[in-house]
Amino acid sequence: MKQINASIITIGDELLIGQTIDTNSAFIAQELNKIGVWVRRRVAVGDAWDDIWQALDEESQLADIVIITGGLGPTADDITKPLLCKYFGGNLVVNEDVLKHVKYLFEQVYRRTGIMLERNLKQAEVPDVCTVLHNARGTAPGMLFKKGGRVTISLPGVPHEMKGLMTDQVIPRLLKEFEMPVILHRTAFTSGAGESMIAEHIKEFETALPSHIKLAYLPGYGMVKLRLTAKGDTKSTLEKELNDQFEQLKSLVKQWLVTDTDENLEVVIGRILKEKNKTVATAESCTGGYIAHLITSVAGSSAYYKGSVVSYANETKENILGVPHSTLLSAGAVSEETVTQMVKGAIEKLNTDFAVATSGIMGPDGGTQKKPVGMVWIAAGNKEKVVAKEFHFRFDRERNIRQTAHTALDFVRKFIIANS
Amino acid sequence: MKQINASIITIGDELLIGQTIDTNSAFIAQELNKIGVWVRRRVAVGDAWDDIWQALDEESQLADIVIITGGLGPTADDITKPLLCKYFGGNLVVNEDVLKHVKYLFEQVYRRTGIMLERNLKQAEVPDVCTVLHNARGTAPGMLFKKGGRVTISLPGVPHEMKGLMTDQVIPRLLKEFEMPVILHRTAFTSGAGESMIAEHIKEFETALPSHIKLAYLPGYGMVKLRLTAKGDTKSTLEKELNDQFEQLKSLVKQWLVTDTDENLEVVIGRILKEKNKTVATAESCTGGYIAHLITSVAGSSAYYKGSVVSYANETKENILGVPHSTLLSAGAVSEETVTQMVKGAIEKLNTDFAVATSGIMGPDGGTQKKPVGMVWIAAGNKEKVVAKEFHFRFDRERNIRQTAHTALDFVRKFIIANS
Repeated sequence: MKQINASIITIGDELLIGQTIDTNSAFIAQELNKIGVWVRRRVAVGDAWDDIWQALDEESQLADIVIITGGLGPTADDITKPLLCKYFGGNLVVNEDVLKHVKYLFEQVYRRTGIMLERNLKQAEVPDVCTVLHNARGTAPGMLFKKGGRVTISLPGVPHEMKGLMTDQVIPRLLKEFEMPVILHRTAFTSGAGESMIAEHIKEFETALPSHIKLAYLPGYGMVKLRLTAKGDTKSTLEKELNDQFEQLKSLVKQWLVTDTDENLEVVIGRILKEKNKTVATAESCTGGYIAHLITSVAGSSAYYKGSVVSYANETKENILGVPHSTLLSAGAVSEETVTQMVKGAIEKLNTDFAVATSGIMGPDGGTQKKPVGMVWIAAGNKEKVVAKEFHFRFDRERNIRQTAHTALDFVRKFIIANS
Repeated sequence: MKQINASIITIGDELLIGQTIDTNSAFIAQELNKIGVWVRRRVAVGDAWDDIWQALDEESQLADIVIITGGLGPTADDITKPLLCKYFGGNLVVNEDVLKHVKYLFEQVYRRTGIMLERNLKQAEVPDVCTVLHNARGTAPGMLFKKGGRVTISLPGVPHEMKGLMTDQVIPRLLKEFEMPVILHRTAFTSGAGESMIAEHIKEFETALPSHIKLAYLPGYGMVKLRLTAKGDTKSTLEKELNDQFEQLKSLVKQWLVTDTDENLEVVIGRILKEKNKTVATAESCTGGYIAHLITSVAGSSAYYKGSVVSYANETKENILGVPHSTLLSAGAVSEETVTQMVKGAIEKLNTDFAVATSGIMGPDGGTQKKPVGMVWIAAGNKEKVVAKEFHFRFDRERNIRQTAHTALDFVRKFIIANS
C-alpha cells in the first residue's frame, strides 16, 4: 500500500520571531499519525505572500495532504485566505452557513465579552472552490481544497479551534479520501537511567529489529521514553509482531520501567491511587506549585488529590505545615529534616494517605558551597513512615523546577507501590 | 544594507509524530531577531538521510545562515553528524578538546548518575571541515561550517545545551561574520479587549504606519500583545521613529494597557510588589497550583511571594483556609462567598498584604446548568477589603486553567494598584 505523506505549514510572523511556541503542529502530527499518515515535513513561514505561496508549492510536491494553520484571524496581518483563493483559482463569496454561525456566536456566546464588527462578518467570506469545514468553536471556518489527487486544508491558528476542527472534520474526511497503511506505536516509559545507558543495555535488541519496526529514544525530565513504531499493511499481523518486540524490550528494561503505556507520570499516579482508593497531598517549596499543577491537569484528579501547601516562605512551612522553627534553624529549609516534617504536616493538615514534599535551590541565585544551585531534598511518606533523598540537578531555573517535580512524582509513585 | 536571512532546521522523528513540542526554534528565532537576523523559514524533518539532505539544500538557497538542531545525541537514531560531514566534504576525526571535555563531564559532573560509554566518547568525533563550538553544558559539541558566503551551524537538541551554545558561541560569531541591519521591537501588553476590538480601535493608526514599521497582534490567555517592529540602517533614527509610533499606540490603547514592556504578567506583578515592598499569597482551587507556578517561575519571587494553599478538596478549603462549612453547603465551592473567604483565609494564614483566590469548573466534567464548565469566581483582596468577580471561559480543561490563572493575576494586579 502506498504511504500517505503529509506536510504541515504554519503561518505567522510570531512564529519566526519566537514570540509564540508552535504547539499546533504537534497536535496535528499526532492526529495524522494515529490514522496512518506520515508527517514528512513541517514548515513555518511568516505573513508574507511569496513565502506562503512558495511553501504551498514545495509541500504540494512532497505530500498528499497539506495542512495549513494560522493566518485566518480577523485582523489585518492575515493574508492566507485571499492567497488560497488565488492559488486554487476561485473567488471570495459569502457563505450563508458561516455567516449565520458568526452571528450566532456573537449574539449568544460572546455577548459578555465581544461586539461584532465588520471584520468579524468578513470571516464568512470563503473561496468558492473550497469545501467549508464547520468551526463549532470559533468564527474562522476551515477550508478544504482538492487539486491533482492532493488535499490541502486550511485551519485557524487558535489551538482549541484547530483541535476541534481536526477531530470533528479533518480526520473523518481524510479517512474517506485516502486508503491508509497501518502505523502502530508502543511506548515504554523508563526512569532512573540515561539515554546512553539504556542504548548500551539494549544494543543487541535494537540491531536485531526488522526494518519496518523502528526504535526511538525520547528523553524528558528525569525519564526516557522508548518508542517502537511499526509500519505495514495488515493490522493484526503487525500488531502481533510489534507486541512480541515490545515484550522483549520491556523485559530488557524491566529495572527502569515505569509503565508500558504512553502516559505521563501524573496520569500513572492517578490510576494507581484510584485503583487503591487512596489519596495524596503535596507540600512544595522549590517546585512552587508545579507538582500540584501537573496532578490537577488530569481531569478527575479530585478523586485522589486533596491539595498542596506551597510553602515558599519559611514562615509558611512553620505556620501551616508545622515544621518546627528549631528544625529550620538547625538543619535549614533544604534538608532531610525539613522535607520529612513537610510530608508529616501535609498528611495531617490535608488528611491524606500519602504526601510528597520538595525543598531545594532552583537558581540562578541562592546557592552556597554546601548547598549549591540544583540541590534538592525530596520526601514521600504515609502516616507510618517517611523516606527522603537528596538529588542534584544541573540546569537552569525552569528546568530544575520541572526536573524536581517529575522526580518527586516518580519518588512518591515508588513509595505508594512499595507501601500499600 | 542587505537583509540577513536565516532558516532553522529541526531534526527528529519525535517532532513529526507530535511527541515533542519544538521549543528550540522559538528560542533560536528570538536570539537571531535581537541581532537583526530575520528568520524566514523553520523546517522540521525526520531522522531520514534524504529528507535532512534536501532540507539543507533548500534552506541554503534561501538563507545566509542555516541553524540545525537535534540529531546529535549519543544514540543510534542520530545520523546528522555523518551527514553533515559528507555534505561539507570532510572526514570524522577525534577532537582532543571535546574528548577532554566529555571525560571531564563524566568524571566530575555526572559521576552521581552516569557511566561513560563508548558511544559517549564518539561525541568527540567531529568533521575536520568544521569549527567546533564548545558546549559547556553537555557532551555534544556545536559545529560551524562555511560554504559560499553562507554559515551553517549544527547544535544539539537538548534545550538547555542549545541555549548555552546560542548565547555563548553562535551569536558572537554571527556578529563577527555578518553586517546586520537594525531590527527594533516595542511591545504593548493589553488585557480586557479582544483582537478584533483593538484592531477596530486603532485602524487609522495601523493604516498610517510607514512601510518599514509593522504591527502584529499576538493574542494570549486573556490578553493581546501589540508588537511594533521597525527595520532600518541607523539605530538612533529608527529608535526615535519607533518610539514616536509606540507612544501613539500606547495612548490609543491606554484603557487596556497593562505594561509597555514585553514581560509576562507574573514579572509585572513581581515588580509592582517589590516597588511597594508588599507581599502576596494565593489560594487556588480550580487553577490547582498553576498561579503559584507562574509566580515562582520568576527568580527572586521569594521576596514578595509567601506561598499558596491549593485547596482542591472542599475539606482543605475548610481545614486550612477556614472557609465555613455552612458557606460551602449554602453557596457551594464555586461562589462569591467561597472565594472571598479563601482570600481572607490566605491573608491570615500566610500573613501577607494581598491574596488572590480562584474556584471554578475547568471541565470536561463537573458542569451543571447553573454552574457550567468554564464558570469561575476570582477574588482579590487585602486585610480591609475583598472584591470578587464571576468569569465564563469556553475552552478545554488545559486552556481554562491557563486562562483562569492569567485572569486572576491581572485581577490581583489591578487590586494592588488601586489599593496601595
